[in-house]
Amino acid sequence: MTPAFSIGLDLGGTNARAAAVDGLGRIVAVSKHKLADRSPDACAAALEACARDVVASLGRTLEDAEGIGLALAGQLDSLTGRVIVAPNLGWRDLDFGALLEARLGRKVAIGNDLAVAALGEARAGAARGMDDAILVFVGSGVGSGLILGGRIHHGFRGVSGEFGHVKVHPGGRPCGCGERGCLEAYAGGVNLGARAAELVRGGRASSLTFPEGLHPTMAMIERAAEEGDALCVELREEAAVLVGVATANLVTVLNPQVLVLGGGVLAGSPYARWRVEEVVRAHASRASLHGLLVVNPALGDDAGVIGGAFLARG
Amino acid sequence: MTPAFSIGLDLGGTNARAAAVDGLGRIVAVSKHKLADRSPDACAAALEACARDVVASLGRTLEDAEGIGLALAGQLDSLTGRVIVAPNLGWRDLDFGALLEARLGRKVAIGNDLAVAALGEARAGAARGMDDAILVFVGSGVGSGLILGGRIHHGFRGVSGEFGHVKVHPGGRPCGCGERGCLEAYAGGVNLGARAAELVRGGRASSLTFPEGLHPTMAMIERAAEEGDALCVELREEAAVLVGVATANLVTVLNPQVLVLGGGVLAGSPYARWRVEEVVRAHASRASLHGLLVVNPALGDDAGVIGGAFLARG
Repeated sequence: MTPAFSIGLDLGGTNARAAAVDGLGRIVAVSKHKLADRSPDACAAALEACARDVVASLGRTLEDAEGIGLALAGQLDSLTGRVIVAPNLGWRDLDFGALLEARLGRKVAIGNDLAVAALGEARAGAARGMDDAILVFVGSGVGSGLILGGRIHHGFRGVSGEFGHVKVHPGGRPCGCGERGCLEAYAGGVNLGARAAELVRGGRASSLTFPEGLHPTMAMIERAAEEGDALCVELREEAAVLVGVATANLVTVLNPQVLVLGGGVLAGSPYARWRVEEVVRAHASRASLHGLLVVNPALGDDAGVIGGAFLARG
Repeated sequence: MTPAFSIGLDLGGTNARAAAVDGLGRIVAVSKHKLADRSPDACAAALEACARDVVASLGRTLEDAEGIGLALAGQLDSLTGRVIVAPNLGWRDLDFGALLEARLGRKVAIGNDLAVAALGEARAGAARGMDDAILVFVGSGVGSGLILGGRIHHGFRGVSGEFGHVKVHPGGRPCGCGERGCLEAYAGGVNLGARAAELVRGGRASSLTFPEGLHPTMAMIERAAEEGDALCVELREEAAVLVGVATANLVTVLNPQVLVLGGGVLAGSPYARWRVEEVVRAHASRASLHGLLVVNPALGDDAGVIGGAFLARG
């Protein structure tokens, strides 16, 4: 007999995933479907297929799940439950929850992907058992998930945690969000690639080579930095310091017990990962550093589905 | 018959205050004693005298209070209950709660003064009924109080809200806290006065006049700025922009429903109060500004005792 389980769902830009997760956060069954297209209907269908796979593999039904929770890469309005904007999916102002609930015949708790991942890490991962946990994520974009008092801090409208859009150079580089000077415009992987391309095309010496119309990837920038390319060393250093100081300020104000440093840029660059932590320890208030743990995520790609299962449990 | 009441206590650098507060946050009796000296014993004695005055004036005893809560201007360790440091009182590493509880014969809930003031404003003041409220305070120092999910966010060790010590110019001006580049070093009233004095003594033209060995006050800087003194205009503007951007970043990350802008510097400078709000609205993420209220505090000097009474109720 399968133990009690909840279902965690995760919708990224490429895949839909589902897992049945027990009360301790252990995955008992899992399923992944590549998205055929990113229309809301196709995405809801993919999530439904994953969820039905998972329960079928356990010889159970959706009705047997204690709850269903979804991690979605986008801004959600917690008052209305609507998706405000989900750039990776190309959605804007959409009641995706209603669509999914109609298919599954069950209530679905929805949360922002990083907030849900932070919940997963706080309940069953690198921050297990810690009530005040901050996940800072540096990948193609920059974001955060805040677990305060043991629960996701959603904020008034559910758009808390937009750490990538704190202003580090007010009025500075334009950001994908339409504003200027955001942390993500300087430290997100996509923007770092774009800046490197701009600077090289503007005549700056660098070993980077990349085809016309494309940008170097973070992996290319990291490799060149490791080989001593001055431009890449400089960009990587600037990004790490900006992320570090902004994270230090978050630690000073929120006094978490644990800081989880995640995302592809930090996972792919031991230097950046080390430097961010060093800058946090240099610039957060002394009192807030007392006893602070700084850790890597432990759940990898499963953070969303595990967090989603905990979200469903409330 | 007096209705049910709790007792709120407030210990600043100059006065001890107590109030009996009803369940709606209305003060039913109040007492204030000037501190004879700032020794822990003298402060505990002054708070005890205030508390006993208040209950005596109601014909009641301390045992009749539903609870007792204290707002204290200092850093508190929420794990041990000890005062880490209280610069205005000259204290460091002290179990003031035990001292006070021995005198009162009752348990006392203790909170940082700005956190407790924010709780007062959120329960009975300018942010009444709002669960996510941030109080930003710009006076001689700079700080904040965070009400998240209807309760004070203490953080892991109770030192959250140290907004004056977020870094705005890492490695920059030395701050009273022993670090460099803190917001308070640029925007706190005491530091602004010190900077003005430095610049004038260094030969910068200004209409400010002040005796050798002293600094101009914020009121002097504000008056000179209003009369067009370029140095004072510049210092006031820089401070307002730094506070505004740091506050915008707090709003972006925490998505509060209401932002309360308090403290003597903002109360004394209509320009700075206006400019901080303008900068917040220019730099916080668009989503976090949706429906955000920006208000002045409503409880004045009573915020600490009213908040203290709510702190006692939990």
